[in-house]
Amino acid sequence: MRALFFHKKPKYSRDYPTPKRAEGEALIRVLQAGICNTDIEIVKGYMPFQGVLGHEFVGVVEEGDKTWIGKRVVGEINCPCRRCEYCRQGLGNHCPNRKVLGILGKDGAFADYLTLPMANLHELPTSVSNLQAVFVEPIASAFRILEQVDTGPNDKVAVLGDGKLGLLVAQVMAGTGCELTAIGRHPEKLEILARKKIKTRLVHEGPHQKFDLCIDCTGSPKGLELALDLVRPMGKIVLKSTFASPVPHWFGAGGERLNLSQLVVNEVVLLGSRCGPFKRAIEALQDGAVEVTALVTKVYNLEEAIKAFGLASRKGVLKVVLDMT
Amino acid sequence: MRALFFHKKPKYSRDYPTPKRAEGEALIRVLQAGICNTDIEIVKGYMPFQGVLGHEFVGVVEEGDKTWIGKRVVGEINCPCRRCEYCRQGLGNHCPNRKVLGILGKDGAFADYLTLPMANLHELPTSVSNLQAVFVEPIASAFRILEQVDTGPNDKVAVLGDGKLGLLVAQVMAGTGCELTAIGRHPEKLEILARKKIKTRLVHEGPHQKFDLCIDCTGSPKGLELALDLVRPMGKIVLKSTFASPVPHWFGAGGERLNLSQLVVNEVVLLGSRCGPFKRAIEALQDGAVEVTALVTKVYNLEEAIKAFGLASRKGVLKVVLDMT
Repeated sequence: MRALFFHKKPKYSRDYPTPKRAEGEALIRVLQAGICNTDIEIVKGYMPFQGVLGHEFVGVVEEGDKTWIGKRVVGEINCPCRRCEYCRQGLGNHCPNRKVLGILGKDGAFADYLTLPMANLHELPTSVSNLQAVFVEPIASAFRILEQVDTGPNDKVAVLGDGKLGLLVAQVMAGTGCELTAIGRHPEKLEILARKKIKTRLVHEGPHQKFDLCIDCTGSPKGLELALDLVRPMGKIVLKSTFASPVPHWFGAGGERLNLSQLVVNEVVLLGSRCGPFKRAIEALQDGAVEVTALVTKVYNLEEAIKAFGLASRKGVLKVVLDMT
Repeated sequence: MRALFFHKKPKYSRDYPTPKRAEGEALIRVLQAGICNTDIEIVKGYMPFQGVLGHEFVGVVEEGDKTWIGKRVVGEINCPCRRCEYCRQGLGNHCPNRKVLGILGKDGAFADYLTLPMANLHELPTSVSNLQAVFVEPIASAFRILEQVDTGPNDKVAVLGDGKLGLLVAQVMAGTGCELTAIGRHPEKLEILARKKIKTRLVHEGPHQKFDLCIDCTGSPKGLELALDLVRPMGKIVLKSTFASPVPHWFGAGGERLNLSQLVVNEVVLLGSRCGPFKRAIEALQDGAVEVTALVTKVYNLEEAIKAFGLASRKGVLKVVLDMT
């Protein structure tokens, strides 16, 4: 089959072996798949992954239990062992033995076929297009925040970063009725949110108000520094960014600096946040709460995957999608 | 009066002006005061404070309302404005207009006299000695953790750091009945905890188990790195350390590195933690739950304050106390 795989660098092959489904798994023909920052970070060395990249996808089940065959699906990316202490507590996303589609020990979605446990699959309603469905995984990750922090109309919330994830997170947070400000560096990206009546401002603009909750989607260590500056005492910061370069610890003069004393003195709570509920993400696409078409920069055929990856890695580019059909 | 004050460097004076109490304040004759890591960090530049250092003290009220005069007291160190939004919500410790004894805008305890609002004072029971009372403030700071995280017999807890604060925090956490391990670098300090039947281990010893809660009292940025390594997925880290050097942000190869991606992937919650309840601290000294005499390295007369400060700054030294009587 055709596949974009990573082995020291991203490579394209027409003859990558088609995956074989294990017990409980479905074989899925991929229709479309989105390139995520995590894919780009893997290429930079964020995870020691080798194999087919990609974890944001929509596809059709070709092999598996009868009830699934022919169904158009998206799939949760964590494949837990279902036996360990974490799995027994319903925390499969944190199973230490887990595989993660296109990220950890399991070939991903930038290919004609992938396999996933049928337990991971969600059937799509016809009202959600393939291009929309590619965004289910990152929208679910945005909804994860609402499982971790209680947010309502009395809360002043800042979403930091106007990249792909920031634009989704801002739309999800807007749904809580909170007093929301999206803060970014790109007027043309913030405009996507402004059209949805979300208040936006550029990072260096005032007023310098304090927020109850800051959500860092910048993908850069500078985001946490900004969040620590903007959050009120006893406020919360949700960290969604993962990046290849570890934040260094100790430094002489100069350089970027992260003042963690501020976190202690202001008794700030910092929460790491990862994967979330697919069901809510699909519903948000169905009812129009989250709008994604303006976030698609370009759709490439799978053959052009290397070119697509190059574009996706460029600053200012939003979602680049691969089409396998 | 006699005072140890900080102006570019620590200085001792016999003629420092005696403070005048403002409305609502008491004038307190200081009996003893402890040197805290925060004092040492201020001298290193952690805060832009100038004036009399010191905030851990026991004293006798000489001026103030009749009911207070002659009473032996300890005092909470935050002096909030009592008018702002934070104060109205009962969050005076985070009042943006606050003064903090010996730390922010208010002369501290390494002197013959200090002033504090009478609302900040706690009368000491006779069963608590002066030397014990010097530890009320840091013990209260340890109890703050129990206001922030729910901990009980089912929780595996690690206290990182066997300095002054770590040894107090470990004793406070032991009182929750949790499955506690104190981790440090100094066998002779850990021995103080072992005598209280607290499980201890050296930092490089195994087994490499994971903890539900890690409390960083190391006073070093390395503590957070260790905590991120030891905490289980979806576990919590409480950060008690403040230090002068900001943690740097971005780095090439080599050097100390803080991998915040781990915090995101494992959805760890990091909580900053500062001042706590004096009442519980006094009770813990009364009922023997927290034992402090083994933590006193040396008591100096106030005249020897510079020498005392030198000793307190040395590695391996625990609490150094100044005596004003």
